[in-house]
Amino acid sequence: MKQDRHLTIALDAMGGDQGPEIVVPGTALAAARHPELRFLLVGDRSRIAPLLERHPKLRERAEIRHTEVAVAMDARPSQALRQGRGKSSMWLAIDAVRQGDADAAVSAGNTGALMAMARFILKTLPGISRPAIAALWPTLRSESIVLDVGATIGADAAQLVEFAVMGEAMARCLLGLEKPTVGLLNVGVEEIKGVEQVKEAGRILRDSRLPIEYAGFIEGDDIGKGTVDVVVTEGFTGNIALKTAEGTAKQLTSYLRLVLSRTLLSRLGALLAAGAFRALKDRMDPRKHNGGVFLGLDGIVVKSHGGTDALGFATAIDMAVEMVRTGLVAKIRTDVELMTGLLKEPDAARLNLTEVGS
Amino acid sequence: MKQDRHLTIALDAMGGDQGPEIVVPGTALAAARHPELRFLLVGDRSRIAPLLERHPKLRERAEIRHTEVAVAMDARPSQALRQGRGKSSMWLAIDAVRQGDADAAVSAGNTGALMAMARFILKTLPGISRPAIAALWPTLRSESIVLDVGATIGADAAQLVEFAVMGEAMARCLLGLEKPTVGLLNVGVEEIKGVEQVKEAGRILRDSRLPIEYAGFIEGDDIGKGTVDVVVTEGFTGNIALKTAEGTAKQLTSYLRLVLSRTLLSRLGALLAAGAFRALKDRMDPRKHNGGVFLGLDGIVVKSHGGTDALGFATAIDMAVEMVRTGLVAKIRTDVELMTGLLKEPDAARLNLTEVGS
Repeated sequence: MKQDRHLTIALDAMGGDQGPEIVVPGTALAAARHPELRFLLVGDRSRIAPLLERHPKLRERAEIRHTEVAVAMDARPSQALRQGRGKSSMWLAIDAVRQGDADAAVSAGNTGALMAMARFILKTLPGISRPAIAALWPTLRSESIVLDVGATIGADAAQLVEFAVMGEAMARCLLGLEKPTVGLLNVGVEEIKGVEQVKEAGRILRDSRLPIEYAGFIEGDDIGKGTVDVVVTEGFTGNIALKTAEGTAKQLTSYLRLVLSRTLLSRLGALLAAGAFRALKDRMDPRKHNGGVFLGLDGIVVKSHGGTDALGFATAIDMAVEMVRTGLVAKIRTDVELMTGLLKEPDAARLNLTEVGS
Repeated sequence: MKQDRHLTIALDAMGGDQGPEIVVPGTALAAARHPELRFLLVGDRSRIAPLLERHPKLRERAEIRHTEVAVAMDARPSQALRQGRGKSSMWLAIDAVRQGDADAAVSAGNTGALMAMARFILKTLPGISRPAIAALWPTLRSESIVLDVGATIGADAAQLVEFAVMGEAMARCLLGLEKPTVGLLNVGVEEIKGVEQVKEAGRILRDSRLPIEYAGFIEGDDIGKGTVDVVVTEGFTGNIALKTAEGTAKQLTSYLRLVLSRTLLSRLGALLAAGAFRALKDRMDPRKHNGGVFLGLDGIVVKSHGGTDALGFATAIDMAVEMVRTGLVAKIRTDVELMTGLLKEPDAARLNLTEVGS
């Protein structure tokens, strides 16, 4: 990031189910939290400007970059690239990062299109074969990072190791941990313990001298327990695990509401315990964990949930800010270089490290 | 099943974390629910007999088949097969089904070993390439069947179709539905919608004239919603989805306990709403959904959770009884024959069906 100006976040103002109606007030919330930030709102001026009028403090620190083109929420990535290239709000927000006008881009738009454009514009970092999307997962212990939650499908051992390296760097940045633990998501049935790629990734993480606190295989129920700080898996399983957990949380909340409304006594009890339920709701609030961070690109892009509200969108901005401040991209770049070196010449690297250690 | 005798369930009395201490009282519970059942308790007589003394009503209807060999909970399947073949309680319980001494076997032992032995002894049905484990999943609507939850890893399109056929038959048997709906678990990101196998399985289920109510792709959060009656996926993802949901449910329950205990007011509220919380606990009780049904074998084997209690073990027996009574194996056999015919000559089959329909 440039030192001669304020930190700037570019927003795809047209992304998400409601576009500027959510993006502008969400940005206003983030602006109030971070008084030093500046914002670049990319989209239709005729829709953004009136909304901005309602947030005078944001208006002072925001610039509108006008475009009338927006990527549809259901557009295919190829179609979005073709039609939105060089002119859509999504493209221009990401491109502002490439050009140095912004330090990160946040969009609540179509995930596939956003990833396709982000790869195209920002390029993947050297040594990274495929970018991943990382999610923040609330756990019993605190929070963990889970990746990939849907950028790609299937991953070989080397890619899983890349995910581990990137997720570990993100955990240091976002969770403030010095030595985050990393686990590989696997199944526990003895006969078939894991697919070959997962086993091989486990061997690499265990045997190489990567400076990663590898904690071994974990199972699905370990995610919510917070057994490790970083959960590594390929995108198909990660996406299904994430959505299954979301579904289960909703299911339990519905049950709870149902049983509490059944009798007069339980309704009275619920009333007395209202503070507790608010605390529970607060803790589980998906808006407080909103934001999928694209890892492995030469720049920071955060995907907000398309259906979130202003509060949720502000969380996604918070996440982007944190990634910029802590220098995530530079950390990943360094770590991946180290990884590439170590994995290329494992024995030499081991020797060096042993010498340093002795 | 033979008509000239009572329906009999064989129990691996040594399986599970606590062996007969749970299996015998669990069987006693099931015996009380099903007064017409008979039981074959396989295992160490010196441990089973004293426990049976405490349940005189079960004792009248139970026979002990003695063996001192038990499969260790952490034994590898190959090791279990080698050491437990022909003499372990697990082997003998399954073999009782093959010999016609029992109609189904239930074990809380090592899943990998149980599957390996079950395949070895009972064999897979003609037309089935690999057996699957199906779980009963509580949903907002009622209950769904999810398979495979860990018998195998990875599945091609034809195997996913086999899972669909078997799960659909199980839903008719266990859930009593005439036309259960079937969905394929997939991810929603447009760019990468699904792996090739899942897409291909979707095409087969849609285009072939299999008598299956195919509802298309579903995502992780659809499982808990109960969007479809049968959720089809390969074992790695299925196992992780199942355990992730279990973990999330535990996590929420812990949060709830925590927030409710915080203030005097919320503790009082919780006291008044105690009935509601009991109802919630009851609804989410994993013991009421305990039992993974092995599908695709020429006989019925149900895997109980290794750490469950008597109530949970009784549920697994209930499930086995239901599968026997409703003739699950015969239904699957017929359906798979039909499937094999239809998929071999799709055009001919279509023609016939069209003629029948017109």
